[in-house]
Amino acid sequence: MDILVLNGPNLNWLGRRQTDIYGQLSLDEINQRLSELFPQVTLEFFQSNCEGELIDALQQAGDRVSGIVINPGALGHYSLALADALSALTIPVVEVHLTNVFAREQARQWTVTAASCRGYICGLGWQGYQLAIQSLLYILEEEN
Amino acid sequence: MDILVLNGPNLNWLGRRQTDIYGQLSLDEINQRLSELFPQVTLEFFQSNCEGELIDALQQAGDRVSGIVINPGALGHYSLALADALSALTIPVVEVHLTNVFAREQARQWTVTAASCRGYICGLGWQGYQLAIQSLLYILEEEN
Amino acid sequence: MDILVLNGPNLNWLGRRQTDIYGQLSLDEINQRLSELFPQVTLEFFQSNCEGELIDALQQAGDRVSGIVINPGALGHYSLALADALSALTIPVVEVHLTNVFAREQARQWTVTAASCRGYICGLGWQGYQLAIQSLLYILEEEN
Amino acid sequence: MDILVLNGPNLNWLGRRQTDIYGQLSLDEINQRLSELFPQVTLEFFQSNCEGELIDALQQAGDRVSGIVINPGALGHYSLALADALSALTIPVVEVHLTNVFAREQARQWTVTAASCRGYICGLGWQGYQLAIQSLLYILEEEN
Amino acid sequence: MDILVLNGPNLNWLGRRQTDIYGQLSLDEINQRLSELFPQVTLEFFQSNCEGELIDALQQAGDRVSGIVINPGALGHYSLALADALSALTIPVVEVHLTNVFAREQARQWTVTAASCRGYICGLGWQGYQLAIQSLLYILEEEN
Amino acid sequence: MDILVLNGPNLNWLGRRQTDIYGQLSLDEINQRLSELFPQVTLEFFQSNCEGELIDALQQAGDRVSGIVINPGALGHYSLALADALSALTIPVVEVHLTNVFAREQARQWTVTAASCRGYICGLGWQGYQLAIQSLLYILEEEN
Amino acid sequence: MDILVLNGPNLNWLGRRQTDIYGQLSLDEINQRLSELFPQVTLEFFQSNCEGELIDALQQAGDRVSGIVINPGALGHYSLALADALSALTIPVVEVHLTNVFAREQARQWTVTAASCRGYICGLGWQGYQLAIQSLLYILEEEN
Amino acid sequence: MDILVLNGPNLNWLGRRQTDIYGQLSLDEINQRLSELFPQVTLEFFQSNCEGELIDALQQAGDRVSGIVINPGALGHYSLALADALSALTIPVVEVHLTNVFAREQARQWTVTAASCRGYICGLGWQGYQLAIQSLLYILEEEN
Amino acid sequence: MDILVLNGPNLNWLGRRQTDIYGQLSLDEINQRLSELFPQVTLEFFQSNCEGELIDALQQAGDRVSGIVINPGALGHYSLALADALSALTIPVVEVHLTNVFAREQARQWTVTAASCRGYICGLGWQGYQLAIQSLLYILEEEN
Amino acid sequence: MDILVLNGPNLNWLGRRQTDIYGQLSLDEINQRLSELFPQVTLEFFQSNCEGELIDALQQAGDRVSGIVINPGALGHYSLALADALSALTIPVVEVHLTNVFAREQARQWTVTAASCRGYICGLGWQGYQLAIQSLLYILEEEN
Amino acid sequence: MDILVLNGPNLNWLGRRQTDIYGQLSLDEINQRLSELFPQVTLEFFQSNCEGELIDALQQAGDRVSGIVINPGALGHYSLALADALSALTIPVVEVHLTNVFAREQARQWTVTAASCRGYICGLGWQGYQLAIQSLLYILEEEN
Amino acid sequence: MDILVLNGPNLNWLGRRQTDIYGQLSLDEINQRLSELFPQVTLEFFQSNCEGELIDALQQAGDRVSGIVINPGALGHYSLALADALSALTIPVVEVHLTNVFAREQARQWTVTAASCRGYICGLGWQGYQLAIQSLLYILEEEN
Repeated sequence: MDILVLNGPNLNWLGRRQTDIYGQLSLDEINQRLSELFPQVTLEFFQSNCEGELIDALQQAGDRVSGIVINPGALGHYSLALADALSALTIPVVEVHLTNVFAREQARQWTVTAASCRGYICGLGWQGYQLAIQSLLYILEEEN
Repeated sequence: MDILVLNGPNLNWLGRRQTDIYGQLSLDEINQRLSELFPQVTLEFFQSNCEGELIDALQQAGDRVSGIVINPGALGHYSLALADALSALTIPVVEVHLTNVFAREQARQWTVTAASCRGYICGLGWQGYQLAIQSLLYILEEEN
Repeated sequence: MDILVLNGPNLNWLGRRQTDIYGQLSLDEINQRLSELFPQVTLEFFQSNCEGELIDALQQAGDRVSGIVINPGALGHYSLALADALSALTIPVVEVHLTNVFAREQARQWTVTAASCRGYICGLGWQGYQLAIQSLLYILEEEN
Repeated sequence: MDILVLNGPNLNWLGRRQTDIYGQLSLDEINQRLSELFPQVTLEFFQSNCEGELIDALQQAGDRVSGIVINPGALGHYSLALADALSALTIPVVEVHLTNVFAREQARQWTVTAASCRGYICGLGWQGYQLAIQSLLYILEEEN
Repeated sequence: MDILVLNGPNLNWLGRRQTDIYGQLSLDEINQRLSELFPQVTLEFFQSNCEGELIDALQQAGDRVSGIVINPGALGHYSLALADALSALTIPVVEVHLTNVFAREQARQWTVTAASCRGYICGLGWQGYQLAIQSLLYILEEEN
Repeated sequence: MDILVLNGPNLNWLGRRQTDIYGQLSLDEINQRLSELFPQVTLEFFQSNCEGELIDALQQAGDRVSGIVINPGALGHYSLALADALSALTIPVVEVHLTNVFAREQARQWTVTAASCRGYICGLGWQGYQLAIQSLLYILEEEN
Repeated sequence: MDILVLNGPNLNWLGRRQTDIYGQLSLDEINQRLSELFPQVTLEFFQSNCEGELIDALQQAGDRVSGIVINPGALGHYSLALADALSALTIPVVEVHLTNVFAREQARQWTVTAASCRGYICGLGWQGYQLAIQSLLYILEEEN
Repeated sequence: MDILVLNGPNLNWLGRRQTDIYGQLSLDEINQRLSELFPQVTLEFFQSNCEGELIDALQQAGDRVSGIVINPGALGHYSLALADALSALTIPVVEVHLTNVFAREQARQWTVTAASCRGYICGLGWQGYQLAIQSLLYILEEEN
Repeated sequence: MDILVLNGPNLNWLGRRQTDIYGQLSLDEINQRLSELFPQVTLEFFQSNCEGELIDALQQAGDRVSGIVINPGALGHYSLALADALSALTIPVVEVHLTNVFAREQARQWTVTAASCRGYICGLGWQGYQLAIQSLLYILEEEN
Repeated sequence: MDILVLNGPNLNWLGRRQTDIYGQLSLDEINQRLSELFPQVTLEFFQSNCEGELIDALQQAGDRVSGIVINPGALGHYSLALADALSALTIPVVEVHLTNVFAREQARQWTVTAASCRGYICGLGWQGYQLAIQSLLYILEEEN
Repeated sequence: MDILVLNGPNLNWLGRRQTDIYGQLSLDEINQRLSELFPQVTLEFFQSNCEGELIDALQQAGDRVSGIVINPGALGHYSLALADALSALTIPVVEVHLTNVFAREQARQWTVTAASCRGYICGLGWQGYQLAIQSLLYILEEEN
Repeated sequence: MDILVLNGPNLNWLGRRQTDIYGQLSLDEINQRLSELFPQVTLEFFQSNCEGELIDALQQAGDRVSGIVINPGALGHYSLALADALSALTIPVVEVHLTNVFAREQARQWTVTAASCRGYICGLGWQGYQLAIQSLLYILEEEN
């Protein structure tokens, strides 16, 4: 089983800046932990700071993987184009944010992509990714 | 280790009405599954349709359990009093909703209690509770 | 045939205060008149100032009565939890307000529970209850 | 006793289009039923798609009839001029809508004419007219 | 010199209802007073409750009269079509309201037609018409 | 094949005023050009400044013509009654505006009737009508 | 009879800047014209750029003059303190603006002081003052 | 003389959590201090986390005590039902908040119950209760 | 100990106008009462209708007095400059309004200066000043 | 004559997903049809999911082609940068959307790029492109 | 060459309070530094806490100096009267704020005076004044 | 010392289009002037129309240069992702806009990236870049 773990703008910067907010782990370290935690799943990893490349990745993955975990970063709050790409998918997608966006500033209270996903997890740090993959396994198991 | 699983208004009605939206399982069945899934944890269950009783439960649990999973139901969208009770807690709390509230009507887009919790999970059905408990175990392990 | 007449916060105070706004009749007097006007119907009466108890009452009545008249009082303007309980019902519900809420202050222009009911009657005083029961009889007759 | 039953834009189209929303009965059939149901009342019927003609009708009826039932259709959501005409009347007026406007789209949540009426009934189909006439009879009896 | 005095919805009702708000004079009495006060001007009078007829009147007057006084009544707060008709005129127009609309309810604070007129007078009762005609005479004198 | 070309308030004034905004052609000239451009179609033309007459025209045309082109003028921005009439039609309707309303003032950014039409064309001058008729032919051809 | 003509911020600058918007006449020239036009009235003139001094002037004039014409300039759009001073007066006040504020930018659409005045005149240039004084004479004559 | 001191949700938690925001004193300690400070007054104390019980308490106290001090906690920002109960009282009520709610987050800027009280005191800690009782004594003295 | 009692626009008019709203006492009478009630405190009194002079007074008092009572009048609803001056102070300030501003019109619901004060008292008439001075004494006692 | 047909995010996915909303044709099929329909025009086709590449394409085309058809997809609702690029062009641009965006969800009602285009066509499926090209031919013919 | 450096409310307090926000330098020290940095320019300095005096200063400077640097303090967020005075000037004006107002509270996000200035500089401390004077020199050099 | 000068969408088009708004100089000419004006600084220049590439550039520059000047173009009004990238930087950043965005249309009044920068300069043309670099030199000098 293949699952795509997609990360949006600035998430390649994890562990390097504002570690008090986003945590000490780099994105590579998170990805490695996830690979170790789910040996039975083929995890694909992709990160881009560009909205268009994330849409490309979603479109290309749609036929190849069984589910997607996406952390759209700040794009989750305004990218209607990313939301459209997510709506076009028929495989389950779970959106993840490292921080509790509801406890942050006003502009982050507005969710745009979440409505196009199956589930939404935030505030649980890097383990949010682990929970998201776990939930995809539950969904895929249940629906097959 | 003790974890309180708190459910708000109308969740005692699960599995009896609108099963297309909220799923086939009753709250008792969900609770039983959770108990089976986490034999190492003492799970306490409480449900009430009354905001005041939920606040009472939160206050009383604060000193006794190690973490809380709360599904505030519709109160999550307007109960500032429940949010105050959550803010007063020092143990981790994860908010869970069965459905993807962001894909539902306008009034449910406004989150009030989420900012007072550690994490937030929605749209993943009854397994949202399972993931929430799992995330509490991660948090408690990490912080101890 | 059984019909539940449910009254929310402060309606137990009818006829005692602000009679220029809400009328001279007490809730008991209204209920008695309704019983006399509909001898062929078993009317159940319940009033509570507590949102949670109103939800309890709605859930318990759902399987027992054929229709519900609800005056949610001020809860009609913000209780999304009450709206959820109403949405879960499959029997017809008619919402009643004694006063014309649209001719009152700004905060009362926002209706929350009305969308979860079959019909809505306001501004017609205690006879709004009579009309609501009458309309339930029409609906039940038509659908059976 | 005379009562005017006034219908606004598109209500002459009842029973011909969108019968799933507005019901199977034509306006003529509704009017006939009302006449049969209230033999003791002289019911006058008027319908127009033109805001100005409705205002004309309200002004002319003001001195002649004892009460008015008005279904302003969509004008109820924006016609401040119709509201002014209603405010100028001293006889009781009850506003009726066939559908539960609160369960429909956003633009229909804004009521403009309702504040100028005595009572408001919606969501109860053609029988809303019957209830409105009945309520006028109650009001007229009580005030005389 | 010809000036059109145009009155919108419900102004034919002046002096008959709500005289505490709108004054004791009927529209005919006001018009007669205006004719007497400005013997050197040919005053044309037109009133309609219908937005469309008011637009017709504006279009037809555009080439015949030298200036227009308009009291659009409630249409002044929402009729963008009337505003369009006014914008198309090249002769000066002064909008008049009998009452001080800024001291009335919220919905009347929104002006739509005023931006398409030269001047605006409100709150000065029937003499607002007199002042409006006088101001048109000033404008016409100055511009010729 | 019959197509109704319906024009709302102030469009009878085309070519006479504000020709820098709306163009030099009169409505008659536009209509004549359309007739010449579509000799195979029976084009009916109707214009009114009155919302009610436009609704009348829509209702009467509904059974007689195969499609409708409507330029509601300013009514397109607030006439929910016109929108209702359009929603009741089962034949295709295309809304046309001569100017690019999105490049004009704030009040014209709010579209009310467009949601009840099949398509929407603006900013392309009198040829917007030509394109609208052409698009109706495409639609009718495809669906028959 | 005494009437105070009060001018707010920047009106001392009339005739010196932006004469395309506000006209060629200086405030002194306007005041002189007004004195000549109303020889039977003792006109007092006061101008200040300071909100506080305008309030002082209103308070001191309240017992001395019979009516007030005020052009609050931009303060008319936000000075609730000036509005309070106006509300405390029992003599009639007419607010004047040289330009048609409704045809200007968004911020000038919000009126704050107007609700505390008897009447409101805008868009009629310096003659707006003349009309305002004239209207005060009408009011004073009628009420005495 | 009897005065009811009513405390809403979470105020039973005073002195136990978030003492940097709400102070070190428990509600019992505050109540005891108040009793000592006003030996001439019979102070009744009631606290509940349940909106409905607070309404019950207000209704029952209305005929028994001479004045009420209420700290509605977070309910002060959304409970229209509590506001209704307060509006029904004829004895004076003073609302108290421990913290300066205007210096806190956005959601606490919205006051709902305050308009139904005589006075409002916030930001002055536990002594806000003392001041509120003192002010009730002033009011009662003055009005008797 | 010195305390400054600062009053903003229109408060010099107390007792002279609108006594049904603001009470019968003049500002001088209030000040005299306060002096008599607090013989142990040196009370300084200052009133101005000018925002700038109030800011001057706050700045000059900052180093000289131990606390400030301010009734900013209408400036409390929009003067961000006054709020800045208050924020710069390190001594405690209590804001007072004579009337319950929450029970008044919409524009008075917006508080601007309150967030920069320690406490806020409204609706308790002239005794609000007394309570404010009393609360300053509590604060100063506690903090010294 | 050259015309650029520019398509934004997710339009490369046409015909593959959500064909009930967007139609059965792929973008390639649409482009091919357009080429066949306009043999006299050299049509250039470009699609990108990336806002930046669309801006690049607009800038590069500005000097080479005679007109542009753009379907900005969801970017049309928020990309102010794309709007800036369109505003910088002097050749005519027509914006096209396949669906009637006004009949879709709230977020799609906000148009950002449309104001920077000459014309706007939506709701007419793939033939919207054909109409847009046709309209460009009309414009270019008229202006040359 | 003369340049006026104008400072609004509370800026005379610089260096005395809230030095963590506004810096350690007093306004006199800033002014002295500026005089030393631009020996070739005659710098005039004026500060007032009063909106009216700032408008006076702008009007009087308009004919005497070649450019103006203004730090309106909090008035920049609501003083439309100051904006009017700035709009009347024909010499260049640059607005300066010491702090980055966009990173501060909500109320400071609303700019009122900035639109009436040539340029705007914020967040760069006392050197913002230096940059503003420098920019005026660039502008004056370029335009002469 | 190295400083990055970063330009966003459409700024590569400077000097080619809309030169009345944005000036005659091309971006290359501006950059060259800047290099000449600051010979002691190594200026790096980068422009992209793609939000993602701008974020890439910010991340890569963070460790290499001492300060950044950014003109985000229209992205400054909505790109929360760019704001995130700016917030992650520890070196000083100054945002520049060529035009006075506050004097332009509504959509440009909303600033998103500014809050994540140290300073903000607009309306001063190409010399805004010069001032921004100068201000960075001041900041770097002061902090080292």
